[in-house]
Amino acid sequence: MGNEEMPLPNKYENFNEWYNEILQKAELIDLRYGVKGFIVYRPNATVIMREIYRLFEKELDRLKHSPCIFPVVIPLEFFEKEARHIKGFLNEVFWIMRAGQHELNKPLVLRPTSETAMYPLYAFWIRSYKDLPLKLYQSNSVYRYETKATKPLLRGREFYWIEAHCAHRTKEDAERQVLEDMEVMSKALHEVLGVPFLLLERPPWDRFAGAERTYAFDVLFPDKSVLQIATTHILGENFSRAFEIVYKDVDGTLKYVQQTCFGIGISRILATLISVHGDEYGLVLPFDIAPTQVVIIPILFKDVGKVVMEKCRALFERLKNEGYRVVLDDSDDRPGAKFYRWEILGVPVRIEVGPKDVERGMVTLFRRDTRERIIVEEKDVERKIEELRRDILRVLRERGEKCLKESLRDVKNRDDLMKLAREGGIGRMAFCGREECASEIKAETEGFEVRGVRVNEKWGKLGVCAACGKEAKEIVYVAKPY
Amino acid sequence: MGNEEMPLPNKYENFNEWYNEILQKAELIDLRYGVKGFIVYRPNATVIMREIYRLFEKELDRLKHSPCIFPVVIPLEFFEKEARHIKGFLNEVFWIMRAGQHELNKPLVLRPTSETAMYPLYAFWIRSYKDLPLKLYQSNSVYRYETKATKPLLRGREFYWIEAHCAHRTKEDAERQVLEDMEVMSKALHEVLGVPFLLLERPPWDRFAGAERTYAFDVLFPDKSVLQIATTHILGENFSRAFEIVYKDVDGTLKYVQQTCFGIGISRILATLISVHGDEYGLVLPFDIAPTQVVIIPILFKDVGKVVMEKCRALFERLKNEGYRVVLDDSDDRPGAKFYRWEILGVPVRIEVGPKDVERGMVTLFRRDTRERIIVEEKDVERKIEELRRDILRVLRERGEKCLKESLRDVKNRDDLMKLAREGGIGRMAFCGREECASEIKAETEGFEVRGVRVNEKWGKLGVCAACGKEAKEIVYVAKPY
Repeated sequence: MGNEEMPLPNKYENFNEWYNEILQKAELIDLRYGVKGFIVYRPNATVIMREIYRLFEKELDRLKHSPCIFPVVIPLEFFEKEARHIKGFLNEVFWIMRAGQHELNKPLVLRPTSETAMYPLYAFWIRSYKDLPLKLYQSNSVYRYETKATKPLLRGREFYWIEAHCAHRTKEDAERQVLEDMEVMSKALHEVLGVPFLLLERPPWDRFAGAERTYAFDVLFPDKSVLQIATTHILGENFSRAFEIVYKDVDGTLKYVQQTCFGIGISRILATLISVHGDEYGLVLPFDIAPTQVVIIPILFKDVGKVVMEKCRALFERLKNEGYRVVLDDSDDRPGAKFYRWEILGVPVRIEVGPKDVERGMVTLFRRDTRERIIVEEKDVERKIEELRRDILRVLRERGEKCLKESLRDVKNRDDLMKLAREGGIGRMAFCGREECASEIKAETEGFEVRGVRVNEKWGKLGVCAACGKEAKEIVYVAKPY
Repeated sequence: MGNEEMPLPNKYENFNEWYNEILQKAELIDLRYGVKGFIVYRPNATVIMREIYRLFEKELDRLKHSPCIFPVVIPLEFFEKEARHIKGFLNEVFWIMRAGQHELNKPLVLRPTSETAMYPLYAFWIRSYKDLPLKLYQSNSVYRYETKATKPLLRGREFYWIEAHCAHRTKEDAERQVLEDMEVMSKALHEVLGVPFLLLERPPWDRFAGAERTYAFDVLFPDKSVLQIATTHILGENFSRAFEIVYKDVDGTLKYVQQTCFGIGISRILATLISVHGDEYGLVLPFDIAPTQVVIIPILFKDVGKVVMEKCRALFERLKNEGYRVVLDDSDDRPGAKFYRWEILGVPVRIEVGPKDVERGMVTLFRRDTRERIIVEEKDVERKIEELRRDILRVLRERGEKCLKESLRDVKNRDDLMKLAREGGIGRMAFCGREECASEIKAETEGFEVRGVRVNEKWGKLGVCAACGKEAKEIVYVAKPY
């Protein structure tokens, strides 16, 4: 059938090559825009991003967040209000200093994140405890002048995300918000995207600029590096003091609001879906997020084309009415070419209908994850698709979990650490808690970072730091980030 | 019931005041961002914009356009390629010349529109006639350094739109595309948004920079000014020659593609919905575009609260399952306060359920457009809502059409023109076709512009130009634009 040719290399053996080829062959991203760190999202990538956006927007709406839109430019006077924040971002913002033929008298920054755009307005909107919590989110793009090597979707100068910003009455409300944010991400990764993750509290030196605590979702890539795809932060009163966001409490006293913010890296989640699930035949998309969930392909032979096409059309209408995102590929290409195209796009379920199938009242289902064919009675198609929906998710998740488990290793001493640096993976080690020690680890291992403490992990006796031998204070995970 | 107080002035008598108040009282837009021409979209505006985006995206998808995403920055070398285009936009772009502490060696412009961002890639993607038509669209924001007075949503420096860019094989295909674009807009305005419009071909001096022909949708505002909310353009080969977008035709010859582009002003359509349909009580939204289509309000009295709430919840579930966007307002506020809030937000249908209604098996429906109450049997609610869906659209459309008709007047001579300038409205006049004459009209009337020729309008004998007395070549519409 011509679909046995593997279009791509093995991703575990040569991830970079595999990744660049899949971006191109699946027509996801074009890198020829000519401005470093800025990429073009072709339709195949855009429609997946749209589904990812909708997944999270729907969940945030359900949790009583409201969408809003703030300008892409931030005036300098807002941007410089919170001291740590401007320190953290000053070297990585784009500046607009001119418009038309005029020099602007107020320079503007292209937002690298929107705290300093949004919070001046929060100060207007919030007056009383009755205005709290205020939970707003934006689906937008942000701009950071990355000086490190850029990599499409993983690290760029323009990236797409959702940023949710909450103001609360009490510290406890803020804590609960961060737990809710964690739950949003965990649930989406586990129940829809099928991607395993490490949820880590970042060490103090790796917190978001202006945050009191930072929690991050790291996912494992096929080359054993990790990518941060989402973060949620306790901001405390850092910004509310800087921006004077004050409310009158029940007892009449004026208090600063307690703030949190939550970033969901939509373009990074796209990179994750491509990389974690993809294989030598292309993308493999979980059913619920796939822009096309089912593709129907008629296998036509002369004379019997009409009855096959009729069957395909009837099936298409039936599945569409059931609410599936279904495509009938009635183009003139050969079936093999169609198989190739829809496989590289990762469509989870393919239905093949040939003359013999019609005769027998059967159809052939092909599942993209395991590349198996299953023959079912036509009347059972919906039931089988529902079964596949769940089973594809299970298979993808289990594959990911196996990889994550295999890449995890205990690091007991410096030798283990150097072995990890050579072989790659994620190390779990007792750690002294010192930034200096983390810097030494990074230098010696050429890039492994202390990514933080796993949320809710129980520890036994800690002993000494595996890197420096000083007294250990915590168990941390070390990995090489993108 | 406390809802008879009119919160807003009369929009026909004082449009500016009405407009600014509705933006604030309906919590749509915040103007306190502190950068001229940049505004904050609050949740109430954002959710309406989201529906408008979805309406058009769905239609474009149906017509085989595909969504894509290009960077917000355009390198100078792309931007300056088409001579008329750069001439038209050079004085109104924002420049990024610095990032972090570095001066950029390539200055970047913040896109004012994306022709020059997209077409260099079109040159890579298009090789053969088989690649045509290429129909891509972006839902994004663009940036223009407006030097005129800005007005929120109507004229700003950041605005939200959809831009669709097509490449075709033949001129005829391009012509057909422009007709399709016109149909998309006409249908949405007529069948969903209930807004009447004038579809005009702009005179040569008012074409989009780089276009051969420009067609625009103008809508009438309550102060008798007009607003351009969408345009579609024949670009011919202007850009394909500049960007070398060439395809191999069926016969093997190399040809330049024929291009069109289409802009749908989403933030301007929001302004239009607010202004054309709104009244002294707030927004009035057409049913199909309303983020909340039906709100259910329990009228509670002591003792009988429980049975009323049960009825409301059952009704809520029932309508939700039918696919309506429905809210049950079970907050503690008095019914009058709820009425006020949901009226100002323009929710098309309100359902009131009181103890007597429950007793009788009836519910009270309130339609926002005419502010009438209708009592219906509970079992008939869906049927009645469907009737209201259509009838609200009809009422809004007829109101708009009446206004448009009343504002239209024949201009036969200079006196008529000066009368139009004093009284406002849209003039229909015989015109000589000269730019010079149009400039004189604009100067003398303090801002009335020749907006162009109405598409598909049949003319009789033309006579002489109403403004200058020279031989007339066409019938044009003149109006004061925002």
